[in-house]
Amino acid sequence: MEEKTCLSLLVENNFGVLSRISGLFARRGYNIDSLTVGTTVDAKFSRITITVTGDEQVLTQIKKQLNKLIDVITVIELKPHESITRELVFIKVKANNITRSQIVEIANLFRANIVDVARESLILEITGTREKIDAFFNMIEPYGILEFIRSGDTGLQRGENVLSY
Amino acid sequence: MEEKTCLSLLVENNFGVLSRISGLFARRGYNIDSLTVGTTVDAKFSRITITVTGDEQVLTQIKKQLNKLIDVITVIELKPHESITRELVFIKVKANNITRSQIVEIANLFRANIVDVARESLILEITGTREKIDAFFNMIEPYGILEFIRSGDTGLQRGENVLSY
Repeated sequence: MEEKTCLSLLVENNFGVLSRISGLFARRGYNIDSLTVGTTVDAKFSRITITVTGDEQVLTQIKKQLNKLIDVITVIELKPHESITRELVFIKVKANNITRSQIVEIANLFRANIVDVARESLILEITGTREKIDAFFNMIEPYGILEFIRSGDTGLQRGENVLSY
Repeated sequence: MEEKTCLSLLVENNFGVLSRISGLFARRGYNIDSLTVGTTVDAKFSRITITVTGDEQVLTQIKKQLNKLIDVITVIELKPHESITRELVFIKVKANNITRSQIVEIANLFRANIVDVARESLILEITGTREKIDAFFNMIEPYGILEFIRSGDTGLQRGENVLSY
């Protein structure tokens, strides 16, 4: 079954590491749904979170290929019940004097923040699971979404476990 | 002067686009501090946010090179006063029966969320500007940070302006 899977990687912060990882996906024909890369406690390492769609066979192949790259120290799958994964989303929505308060009300229900107010638009910031964000989009869409940006999933394993080297 | 700059790209969702963009940075010797890539309203396009460090000359070169790639439709700089940029961060911190309430208090002050509670650790989720997150790290650090993950900056221009094609 085709499913979205979230992989968490600890990599050496070598020059061109992101290029090698994304190149691997491109060459093998695996599509990246989203990717985030950021720093860790130690500047020598980076953490990369990749969301991919594919069946179990594809996923096994991806993990195997990633592990072959010398930059890659650890690859784990962030399984839904054992980890926290969220994404950060900004949505710019049309708003006028009539609709503004309606949009603010929906934002409050979803614990979204209003981060920018202009004459004819609002920017909403929301953090959550993909399901929550999809539900929020569904409510906001009728007002007219001007643009949005999704950070892509990022996350950690629950409990004391640490992705280490 | 070396500064962190946040670039927002609208790109065609062609196969290997991320590989070509990160390859450009690698070849030219530009270091990527963080990168996020996610979907847009139209599945044909993706939005990429890249944070880079460099002086104005380097930045001009990067923008020029990015614009030369056929996948890249638009490149804009998210300037601090004209845009909203935030990142999403998860921090796993050591906690016991004595320190847990202290950590929760700090989290509340920063409007961070507690997303996981274990016997010897907590996972905190926080969204904000780099400055806010650095301040939060500073407060949490003495308790013992086990691991953290930063999504990297993502954001939109303020007001009605839309990054379009």
